[in-house]
Amino acid sequence: MSATPLVVSVPEPEYAEALDGLDGLDVVVWDMERPHPRGAEIRLAVLPYMTSLRLADVVPGLDSLEVVQLQSAGYEQFVDELPEGVTLCNAAGVHDASTAELALTLTLASIRDLPEFIASQARSRWEPLRLRTSLADKRVLVLGYGQIGRAIARRFAPFEVTLTAVASHAREGDELVPHVHGIDELAELLPDQDVVVVIVPLTDATRGLVGAEMLGRMPDGALLVNVARGPVVDTDALVAECASGRLRAALDVTDPEPLPPDHPLWSTPGVVITPHVGGATDAMRPRAMALVRRQVRAMLAGESVDNVVAGPLSHPTR
Amino acid sequence: MSATPLVVSVPEPEYAEALDGLDGLDVVVWDMERPHPRGAEIRLAVLPYMTSLRLADVVPGLDSLEVVQLQSAGYEQFVDELPEGVTLCNAAGVHDASTAELALTLTLASIRDLPEFIASQARSRWEPLRLRTSLADKRVLVLGYGQIGRAIARRFAPFEVTLTAVASHAREGDELVPHVHGIDELAELLPDQDVVVVIVPLTDATRGLVGAEMLGRMPDGALLVNVARGPVVDTDALVAECASGRLRAALDVTDPEPLPPDHPLWSTPGVVITPHVGGATDAMRPRAMALVRRQVRAMLAGESVDNVVAGPLSHPTR
Repeated sequence: MSATPLVVSVPEPEYAEALDGLDGLDVVVWDMERPHPRGAEIRLAVLPYMTSLRLADVVPGLDSLEVVQLQSAGYEQFVDELPEGVTLCNAAGVHDASTAELALTLTLASIRDLPEFIASQARSRWEPLRLRTSLADKRVLVLGYGQIGRAIARRFAPFEVTLTAVASHAREGDELVPHVHGIDELAELLPDQDVVVVIVPLTDATRGLVGAEMLGRMPDGALLVNVARGPVVDTDALVAECASGRLRAALDVTDPEPLPPDHPLWSTPGVVITPHVGGATDAMRPRAMALVRRQVRAMLAGESVDNVVAGPLSHPTR
Repeated sequence: MSATPLVVSVPEPEYAEALDGLDGLDVVVWDMERPHPRGAEIRLAVLPYMTSLRLADVVPGLDSLEVVQLQSAGYEQFVDELPEGVTLCNAAGVHDASTAELALTLTLASIRDLPEFIASQARSRWEPLRLRTSLADKRVLVLGYGQIGRAIARRFAPFEVTLTAVASHAREGDELVPHVHGIDELAELLPDQDVVVVIVPLTDATRGLVGAEMLGRMPDGALLVNVARGPVVDTDALVAECASGRLRAALDVTDPEPLPPDHPLWSTPGVVITPHVGGATDAMRPRAMALVRRQVRAMLAGESVDNVVAGPLSHPTR
């Protein structure tokens, strides 16, 4: 191991505390708004969360930079400005708990009629008793069975539902589902689902994936939950299916986003909207800190960092 | 086994279908609104769900009656009019899934700010991004660790929370909690909880249990969820703690109930109210039918029925 300490920049003092007790480390707190006097020494730079910073504004003068650690799962906007030889890591895993939790929140709120009760509460009205719907016994399809998809399935499992998982390719199942279906089976699976939770990444292959045809295959009364990205769903087709009362939807993401005040989705019957709040909770910080600590330990040990999404695939030991 | 068939009355035709294929059985569909011509033969009578019927109006002429099967967990109002020698069975277990599910719905909706988003949606307003709260990493206490309490804990478990269970007496834990605390430990446990879910039965010992003192021991910002019975919580004390902004509450049951239009609880900040809808969902019917089928099989086999709450403790074989 080198005698020169590993210089790491973190966006907030709490992150420095999370790195306490690691030898051979020199942590500087830097929000990246202005150049840092020790910029030339920084080898790992952790970007602030929910930042509008561009790498092109940040990297000049970072002559020792090896790794850029993002705090978001999305990274597309950083790839083009990534300096040669620098590794870009995203924050996959950091937002899983929070996003999976919101998928359950939206599903349960919708199925258990929370929007109606909240509106009734505002009018001090106690709704008369009638038999309502429950999540129990329903068939739930998780569309996108990666890390967050599994976190979602894990939370659905104790609710006495039948789980079906769909990923880009069919594969063996796990402790939650006996089998993972391929995306080519989606159309034939949809007619048998009461709830479809969308958590695929937005790519050319998934843009508009849930359009009029797929929505049309969902049975009457089914619920579409989108915690992925708005453009995965065809908004006009969804509005049409919900306006007719045939389907319901619970959406943390929309297309466009933010949803403009005059958009018909706001007032479409059976639609619940949250303003893209899946990941931005207090669950994120301890998980982000744990990731940064893991990355720092890997660099100190001369091992590969995790979550590499662009640049050299492993961290070269010095 | 007797050659005389076991005559059973069920309130709806679906229940008769659920009993298909059992030998030695004669099922009559009877809603109990008028005397049944074969009343004198009925040995097991299943009451309708959400009924205002009184046993005193139903039992005259039921000369062979051995077992009355309720479809509610509550049974107090039937005990006094139960004929001598007749066994009363409640529907414990039938409403577990639905009630446990609502406990999670209320908790998640409250912690993930659903009421705010639903109000914003009504105004077509996309709330700006800020860091919000999550259920992950929170400490959740289940007060009342019987069958429904465990169903609640089972659903909380995958949400990355710390679970604490409290029952009337301390005992060994299970796969969900290492230890079940006794109610005498409640006061000292409360300061360390972020969420307290109440699911104790209403008895002399639990009436007003969650009063000013217990609420005062909950930490700032904590959430009280009541899916038990309204009078377990002191409503005035709860309104005071929530009106000050110190605590939040999510309630499926209130005291009084229904909550009158002019009650301050309706508009207390941080309070979410659903109108006692915990058990009344479509999850109930298949579970009720399964219970009736189990009871009928027990009687056919000359074995004891389940869920006996009053009358002779086991079914006498004829």
